[in-house]
Amino acid sequence: MLDLTQDVRTLTAAIVDVESVSGAERVLADEVERALGALPHLTVDRSGETVVARTALGRAERVLIAGHLDTVPVHANLPSRVEGDLLYGCGTSDMKAGVAVALKLAAMVPEPNRDVTFVFYDCEEIEAERNGLTRVARDHAGWLAADFAVLMEPTDGVIEGGCQGTLRADVLVTGKRAHSARSWFGVNAIHGIEPVLARLNAYQARQPVVDGLRYHEGLNAVGVRGGVAGNVIPDSCVVTVNYRFAPDLGLTEAREHVREVFDGFEVSFTDGAPAARPGLTHPVAAAFTAAVGGEPRAKLGWTDVARFAALGVPAVNYGPGDPNLAHQQGEYVSLSKIVESERAMLDWLTK
Amino acid sequence: MLDLTQDVRTLTAAIVDVESVSGAERVLADEVERALGALPHLTVDRSGETVVARTALGRAERVLIAGHLDTVPVHANLPSRVEGDLLYGCGTSDMKAGVAVALKLAAMVPEPNRDVTFVFYDCEEIEAERNGLTRVARDHAGWLAADFAVLMEPTDGVIEGGCQGTLRADVLVTGKRAHSARSWFGVNAIHGIEPVLARLNAYQARQPVVDGLRYHEGLNAVGVRGGVAGNVIPDSCVVTVNYRFAPDLGLTEAREHVREVFDGFEVSFTDGAPAARPGLTHPVAAAFTAAVGGEPRAKLGWTDVARFAALGVPAVNYGPGDPNLAHQQGEYVSLSKIVESERAMLDWLTK
Repeated sequence: MLDLTQDVRTLTAAIVDVESVSGAERVLADEVERALGALPHLTVDRSGETVVARTALGRAERVLIAGHLDTVPVHANLPSRVEGDLLYGCGTSDMKAGVAVALKLAAMVPEPNRDVTFVFYDCEEIEAERNGLTRVARDHAGWLAADFAVLMEPTDGVIEGGCQGTLRADVLVTGKRAHSARSWFGVNAIHGIEPVLARLNAYQARQPVVDGLRYHEGLNAVGVRGGVAGNVIPDSCVVTVNYRFAPDLGLTEAREHVREVFDGFEVSFTDGAPAARPGLTHPVAAAFTAAVGGEPRAKLGWTDVARFAALGVPAVNYGPGDPNLAHQQGEYVSLSKIVESERAMLDWLTK
Repeated sequence: MLDLTQDVRTLTAAIVDVESVSGAERVLADEVERALGALPHLTVDRSGETVVARTALGRAERVLIAGHLDTVPVHANLPSRVEGDLLYGCGTSDMKAGVAVALKLAAMVPEPNRDVTFVFYDCEEIEAERNGLTRVARDHAGWLAADFAVLMEPTDGVIEGGCQGTLRADVLVTGKRAHSARSWFGVNAIHGIEPVLARLNAYQARQPVVDGLRYHEGLNAVGVRGGVAGNVIPDSCVVTVNYRFAPDLGLTEAREHVREVFDGFEVSFTDGAPAARPGLTHPVAAAFTAAVGGEPRAKLGWTDVARFAALGVPAVNYGPGDPNLAHQQGEYVSLSKIVESERAMLDWLTK
């Protein structure tokens, strides 16, 4: 069982070392459920691999602190290792350091100044429809009721407002099959994606300012597949692209943009999640900002603040990890940043 | 059981309708083995899904008649259907029409003027190391001893000499992983294959004349794969290319050529089979040419004549199918060409 009395830094390492790639979070979810279930001041619920724990002190305000348990695929970067102030390993930054801080708060603050709901959920790193928060919002919306939410995604200890939207689309090129020994009777669909890649390579990403925060878009291929057999000219090739868009665009406008970029090609959309405008003007958000300090900035990665926004819960991103390291093989987190983050959150819930 | 007394045209349709994609030839091989085993003038052997049947009449010459039982993947083109003189369906041209002619000869000519070895083998359409003829040449070389071989690959009823070689290579592009929301921290390997495709699109294929026959080369992508997850900038993308080369190049020279085309990229070779020069100057080949008639031409597709050449058995391609239709969804064979081919082969073995 996870020992929640240990230092937040060693707790982070312990959580990182429980591999939990999207879809395979069960072992970690079980450990989290058992550890929280042992705390008498919390009510613990479970849905799939998502664990929700709540105080019920009758406070005037309820805040929600959330983190996802899953990581991108391991890439020869487990188990974790410490070098000086840095803890290396898959999921250190995105976002097991944040999960560790939340678990410490759950264990260390039996009587917080606001009621607190802790949410540890699954499948954040993959298709939106498998996301644990989507499922809980649908099946147990009451569990997520709150006046304000802090999502502990990596922000380098800075409050990040809003988030960019994301969508995935398949760009299809068709051709005509033929035997590869007489290729001139066919039309090679793989060769046909050259202009798709040329448009991606030439693409100039926007960096718009929205509600005072600067965003940075991106349009990238994240997958390509084509080929029938080793001796057949392929008649189909699909480039899967991912568009990350600023919160001045709705999902519909973002789709239109992608259609325009790939004008002349067959485009089909497979997945999408809207952006969220920065929510920092809300009074509860302002209170959190005052407690934690620092200058808020724009959130570039899509995060579930957009899901909380859709539920009517204002939410910000705030966590000890460095967002620029997420999903990289060399991912790490600063141990002192984890301690700083724990202290700031502790102040907020106790002072 | 296959009825070998039926007309060669309906026999072809019956064989086409027994689906036998590479690696799944068992049902058809069983039917062929049972049908040949019922003929008292033949000795039948089996290795995996390859069936070999021989006469043993003590003739001065032994000829070998061969065909592969497998097809490329079915593409909504089974069962077969007849339209006028054409039989449509997967494998009609490449090469179940040739297999049907060989089976008819086995059944109809109990006392041929030359001893005959019939070879029906598996896995011709996929990697060389799985090819049934490779396996039999290694494990039962004696079964393939002959003075001359006719491989009944589709040639449109014309004798085709030699064959082009084939090799497959993986062209690897590497990059650097990053979260796709902050793509500028990564290097997108899928975007990086644009110049690989540009070289393929710009490629000018050679059409050299070798021993009097004109060949036609081709260099094509037959597969592409890249992508880690829907939100990760991919750090690796592989384009699999297939080079079909004329018999004036050895396998080593062909590999050098591919390395030159993709200079600056990491190229690794996964599969290769040498070309065979036209073998028509051999006396036994000349006898066959005289019997069948027509003007020999170059074989563009790689065929197992190269394997027979390696065993010291001169071999030609000759069959009723149209090679230009092989591996296409709309593949068909002319029923009257099957009958012509049966008659020519019958004359050769009986007159």
